[in-house]
Amino acid sequence: MRGFLIIGNEAFTEPFNLSDLPGAGRIDVLCRCISQALFLSHSIRKGVEVYLLLLGEPDPPKVMRIKSDELRRMSPDERNVAGHIRKAVGFKISKDWVETNSGIFVARKNLNELLIELSKNYEIYYMREDGKDIRDVVTTMKNPLFILGDHLGVKKREEDLILGFIKSTISVSKFSLMAEQCIAIANYELDRAEIF
Amino acid sequence: MRGFLIIGNEAFTEPFNLSDLPGAGRIDVLCRCISQALFLSHSIRKGVEVYLLLLGEPDPPKVMRIKSDELRRMSPDERNVAGHIRKAVGFKISKDWVETNSGIFVARKNLNELLIELSKNYEIYYMREDGKDIRDVVTTMKNPLFILGDHLGVKKREEDLILGFIKSTISVSKFSLMAEQCIAIANYELDRAEIF
Repeated sequence: MRGFLIIGNEAFTEPFNLSDLPGAGRIDVLCRCISQALFLSHSIRKGVEVYLLLLGEPDPPKVMRIKSDELRRMSPDERNVAGHIRKAVGFKISKDWVETNSGIFVARKNLNELLIELSKNYEIYYMREDGKDIRDVVTTMKNPLFILGDHLGVKKREEDLILGFIKSTISVSKFSLMAEQCIAIANYELDRAEIF
Repeated sequence: MRGFLIIGNEAFTEPFNLSDLPGAGRIDVLCRCISQALFLSHSIRKGVEVYLLLLGEPDPPKVMRIKSDELRRMSPDERNVAGHIRKAVGFKISKDWVETNSGIFVARKNLNELLIELSKNYEIYYMREDGKDIRDVVTTMKNPLFILGDHLGVKKREEDLILGFIKSTISVSKFSLMAEQCIAIANYELDRAEIF
């Protein structure tokens, strides 16, 4: 198992215009993160979960969960992925997960509630530029889940909470990369180390 | 300097519908390749060139060149990148590069003509799953340019031509990754090895 949690600081929590994903609180960033986390060429990875914490207006917080092993009818282009997010944020939700498509779920959870749930199944790592070099520690990982911010990073309030749940901070590059690039690289390093 | 050439086997060579990039000969794949090659978080890499060989109907072949150092007004979402491709394929073209936007050029060249031009400035590597492990050879690279196929790979006719120009074949993973993931990983390995 491996997982990714991406924090969408301004990601819309109601249905949005599929022709303006950046204008929907940078839903485009989240789409690319999902795509890079889940897809191989012409197939979907096994045993990967992606979580999105949607914190934008008008109805935050909402959490989406995508389980690669159950996912159907998603393709890696932004518009297709966004259609799934759009459908999920239109659902009536509660604290419990509700399935909006095969392998896609949505619930009302705040970050603390989500981290409590995730820490039952995952070792949690927080991706930050000053973290430990992933290459030095990847071989020690077991069921890792990586937390990343979107284009706005992670705000101090959320970061303080995250730091209470993590095994360590992790860095993949001395450059400041886009979130989806960090995800592609984490998958790559885990594949090389045969951590599945 | 580093470069990427992506072969768009069916990529439309006339303006297309921005709301159906997969239906335009998988222009979405090319958009993600451009985005992953050029962008860092909130900035654009220095010294990167991306070439697209567009082989789809109705007017192939066309080649696009994007020079990161001169690029303006592009953002990393697929629709924005696609808008630049759409504009370029609408230009009247000739054998010589014509600039369609700051840092974006288009010309009529076939693969052989393009490879002759690229081999003047670059060491050319061909990404193929049975290639040499990039991690074993990255430190020896100097001004590398990587050739990748889109979702259809590289057809035999093009591959036979490419093999005459390359320094070696290169592989990044034992999994069959999407082209944009190979690009993100190549950038990552080059960054680590400080090959700029």
